[in-house]
Amino acid sequence: MQFSPSFQQLIDALRCLPTVGQKTAQRMALHLLERDRAGAGQLAEAIGEALEKLGHCRSCRVFTEGEICPICADSQRDDRLLCVVESPADWIAIESSGAYQGRYFLLLGRLSPLDGIGPDELKLDQLADRLDQPGIEEVILATSATIEGEATAGYVTELARARGLRVTRLAQGVPMGGELEYIDASTLSLALKGRREAES
Amino acid sequence: MQFSPSFQQLIDALRCLPTVGQKTAQRMALHLLERDRAGAGQLAEAIGEALEKLGHCRSCRVFTEGEICPICADSQRDDRLLCVVESPADWIAIESSGAYQGRYFLLLGRLSPLDGIGPDELKLDQLADRLDQPGIEEVILATSATIEGEATAGYVTELARARGLRVTRLAQGVPMGGELEYIDASTLSLALKGRREAES
Repeated sequence: MQFSPSFQQLIDALRCLPTVGQKTAQRMALHLLERDRAGAGQLAEAIGEALEKLGHCRSCRVFTEGEICPICADSQRDDRLLCVVESPADWIAIESSGAYQGRYFLLLGRLSPLDGIGPDELKLDQLADRLDQPGIEEVILATSATIEGEATAGYVTELARARGLRVTRLAQGVPMGGELEYIDASTLSLALKGRREAES
Repeated sequence: MQFSPSFQQLIDALRCLPTVGQKTAQRMALHLLERDRAGAGQLAEAIGEALEKLGHCRSCRVFTEGEICPICADSQRDDRLLCVVESPADWIAIESSGAYQGRYFLLLGRLSPLDGIGPDELKLDQLADRLDQPGIEEVILATSATIEGEATAGYVTELARARGLRVTRLAQGVPMGGELEYIDASTLSLALKGRREAES
């Protein structure tokens, strides 16, 4: 069917959002126009502002307004720990856990030679520079448990070991609330391999 | 956790979209900033343009750029039929079916005395004016099969009958692809009541 041009344009533009198809975009467009014009205005403004102001932190590559992000600028953080994650989403997951007080470095991707993504594409020389800075003692690898994630972890491990740094990985095993009968065999085998002394 | 201000603002603004909560908004914000900056720019622009340009058609109250929407302006449409629907979403559903070639009128709501929504709040005098225009012969009620929808349909029926117009309702019954065993009793009872001679 034929919508008026601005309406159609709004629907098309909304489809750039992840998981939003034609039907959802229509529903969103109607919602914005019919029920939340104020919210729509704020959304347009927030997108514009984010695009204009947000860049990558020079040190850890997190999205931030200035040159340096609040975490890198925070003197309370532990300079000895550097957590290497693939994406901003992974960074949010770890930071939200509240269990980590060190610094970060975002790879913004992972090595995938088949897709033509090598160390140069990921600008891993930036990571090398970061590892050369004084103060770091331990590099915590928090890459995905996938083939590309493993390859990336291997590369970062070499970079770090070459500088005499300790390299650790996130523990793998049974997640909280995980019922053993539903957990896949590879996870169980990792959990067995990584078993620890029971605490008394 | 603490995001940088523009990023947090973008997440908050995205939450005005229907069905979008904190997690989805985060994912959308990251997607826009990381993977689709061009799309994000277009989205901001499309929202702004839609808010600025789109108003209601003077005749049927559909969203449109000008005074009169393309459907009302289309001389090929059947002037004798006026389909009364509640919302733009319902209008889209009927128009997308391609089975209707008449005119429309959008109520933009439904009567709900308990919520203080009466004929005045729905500006039903506009509908009365529309019904007074020459040419209309049949009013097709396409309101929801809910209590408020029925109340609204009753009111519109009175308005139309007072002007000597024929009033019809969408048929109710078993939907296409509907398996009888999963269809609720009220629908089945309506389908039985509305049964028709089998076509040979």
